[in-house]
Amino acid sequence: MEQVSVGLVGLGTVGAGAARILTEHADRVARRAGRKVRLKWAVVRDARKSRDVALDGVRVTTDVDQVINDPEVDIVVEVIGGVDAARRIVLASLAAGKHVVTANKALLAEHGPEIFAQARASDRAVAFEASVGGGIPIVNALGVGLAANQVQNLSAILNGTCNYILTQMTLEGLPYADALAAAQTLGYAEADPTLDVDGTDTAHKLAILAQLAFKAGVPTAAIPRQGIDRLQLADLKYAGELGYAVKLLALAKLTGSGLELRVAPVLVKRGTPLAEVRGPYNAIRVVGDAVGDTFFYGRGAGADPTASAVVGDVIDVAAGRALLTSRVLDLWSADQAPTPLLPSNQIKSRYYLRFSIADRPGVIAALAHILGEKGISIASVIQHDSGDDDSDRKTVPLVIMTHMAIEENLRSALREIDRLDIVRAPSVCLGVEE
Amino acid sequence: MEQVSVGLVGLGTVGAGAARILTEHADRVARRAGRKVRLKWAVVRDARKSRDVALDGVRVTTDVDQVINDPEVDIVVEVIGGVDAARRIVLASLAAGKHVVTANKALLAEHGPEIFAQARASDRAVAFEASVGGGIPIVNALGVGLAANQVQNLSAILNGTCNYILTQMTLEGLPYADALAAAQTLGYAEADPTLDVDGTDTAHKLAILAQLAFKAGVPTAAIPRQGIDRLQLADLKYAGELGYAVKLLALAKLTGSGLELRVAPVLVKRGTPLAEVRGPYNAIRVVGDAVGDTFFYGRGAGADPTASAVVGDVIDVAAGRALLTSRVLDLWSADQAPTPLLPSNQIKSRYYLRFSIADRPGVIAALAHILGEKGISIASVIQHDSGDDDSDRKTVPLVIMTHMAIEENLRSALREIDRLDIVRAPSVCLGVEE
Repeated sequence: MEQVSVGLVGLGTVGAGAARILTEHADRVARRAGRKVRLKWAVVRDARKSRDVALDGVRVTTDVDQVINDPEVDIVVEVIGGVDAARRIVLASLAAGKHVVTANKALLAEHGPEIFAQARASDRAVAFEASVGGGIPIVNALGVGLAANQVQNLSAILNGTCNYILTQMTLEGLPYADALAAAQTLGYAEADPTLDVDGTDTAHKLAILAQLAFKAGVPTAAIPRQGIDRLQLADLKYAGELGYAVKLLALAKLTGSGLELRVAPVLVKRGTPLAEVRGPYNAIRVVGDAVGDTFFYGRGAGADPTASAVVGDVIDVAAGRALLTSRVLDLWSADQAPTPLLPSNQIKSRYYLRFSIADRPGVIAALAHILGEKGISIASVIQHDSGDDDSDRKTVPLVIMTHMAIEENLRSALREIDRLDIVRAPSVCLGVEE
Repeated sequence: MEQVSVGLVGLGTVGAGAARILTEHADRVARRAGRKVRLKWAVVRDARKSRDVALDGVRVTTDVDQVINDPEVDIVVEVIGGVDAARRIVLASLAAGKHVVTANKALLAEHGPEIFAQARASDRAVAFEASVGGGIPIVNALGVGLAANQVQNLSAILNGTCNYILTQMTLEGLPYADALAAAQTLGYAEADPTLDVDGTDTAHKLAILAQLAFKAGVPTAAIPRQGIDRLQLADLKYAGELGYAVKLLALAKLTGSGLELRVAPVLVKRGTPLAEVRGPYNAIRVVGDAVGDTFFYGRGAGADPTASAVVGDVIDVAAGRALLTSRVLDLWSADQAPTPLLPSNQIKSRYYLRFSIADRPGVIAALAHILGEKGISIASVIQHDSGDDDSDRKTVPLVIMTHMAIEENLRSALREIDRLDIVRAPSVCLGVEE
């Protein structure tokens, strides 16, 4: 049996997980790859640090160029994260004729065209199952399993940290800051959680899925995004009363006027699979023109689930499949017809609105009048007896669910409403998915 | 671009669906296969029958040997169903050097060793995504996407007809016969639904998944199975009271004493993904040693979802991947170490029990005594005030949930209990999954 050699760049959580599978389950990996897969190199930042993975026979180095320049290495696995160093390593590895396996969503979202151009020039595979959805084989599903379909619609929970925080807020009634602290205690959130909670991480992953499912080459910056960091507990409670859960979703829809892409906290109908995803899990709903509705679910992060995806890719490369897939998918190619994006102000959705209004006669009528003038029709209203008091001037919450409306019209109505003196705080607006 | 030619054997629901994708979306298929895929032949039973698929340029024949003997044909797609004719066609096609795509679960479950031996001898691929789970790419997930894992546990809803019937029974309170009639009216159940409702179809699919996930070569007849055809509405109601849904599950678990395989209606905890699968859908939960808990969901049958899987396989074969996968998976090979099966009387599970007992003091104590003697401990009991009266001798239902128990001990206890004169009808026993 022919052998392939792997250079593993990065021995953090994911790298150590991948090293463990490659060394402890070498027989299994060999059987499924059709050849022996040897972990030859591990590139680390500090060679003296002790690690809880046995690296017998593995050369540990701090110099990545030793790996890139080793003609025996067939596959470079990049799991250091970050963009600049990873970009250099991936490009140099491809140029040196190595296949690349990467878990790096930011790298692909921001430098996909350059990386895949180099892969094509070198006729090497770039496999990236671990970059989206942790252990869920969603890249393989979209690129191979569902290849007979044109995807029509994709909605996904792609950030386990955010989903854990939202679950804690919903089930335990914790305010955002407390739920975030709980996530940090459990290791689900980083010390600096900004890229998770502001939606950037989800947007990176959506950019990759949009390329796979729609051949849309969209810079992350062009994806409208809103995080969970300004969500108020009150809105999760009203959503619950209305029969919805609030989820941070990546949304992609093929419409007659272009591809709609966005990342936002959205109300999802309880009882649907996405609404019921709890804790640090990821899930992707894919609607294809032939297959109809499908749903994929699993752990979105962590050493072992991500290592499952990384080693799955190593096997796919070693078996010779990944290169064939890379060639036909032809991702981020320069000659692909650009998929037109639907301008974000043209997005159509149902909306959840919450207003903080003076408890006075005629206020609802005034709001309803403005919404009506903009062509926004009201599906349902919640107004409870009392709200947040502010001593003299009593303020009450008013919750409105709209029928389908165009974002532009809605924003215009909200600007007008927020200028009224009977409105005491900026209105809250969230999309609604069925 | 090189071209591959396809011979489609069978132009029923699935065949017509596949023909539509191959002809109406030829550009899409070519792009994803990396070469033009030409539908050259369609083999039908009645050449004069009109069909709602355009077959311009496709040669329609009633003689399958024309396809098998056509050297230009690269891929034979078998979608006629049944076992004997399909077996001959698949073996002859492989022997003639064609790759085979099949949706035929009975064929693979019953003749897997023979078919894959011929595939190996001819070095050709047998692709069978459509044989299990309809449009859900579960074969690809187990064979490729999750290849880094040893599957520990697999539980699946694999028969949409049964799941539709159980959903109707649960949500609408219909008795089995009425729910079956509703399924037949909607085309979800055949005129003769025996193989669906008695669990045979699910057992065929489980045999295939067991081969993929565990390399277990198990004849369908060796899989203990129970259908939904004798389920009583009362048990679905009690299950609901206890917080469970009843689902027909295919179960496979790797235990220290062997592989546990079975098909049975089982109580599944509400709120878990499997319990919430409604209507004619399929779903598979896979627990892998690295990836942890994953879940796949979609339509389990129907023209378009199944055609999505068939054409996905055609693309996989045309792209050259399927042959590589076939070689490494080495399914149903003669030299594979047989996976020992756990004898069915050694299965450990929690159980739901329903007894029809005389409404008399001391009856519960008598039953509890027998269960205790067999080492079966009781987790909870439901006894309502009144049951089905039979005038003189009042009979009441007694529902017991047990803790983990060994099947053999449980059966022995039930035999003893059913002999008591205070027990008025055979006891009902269903497994329970968390």
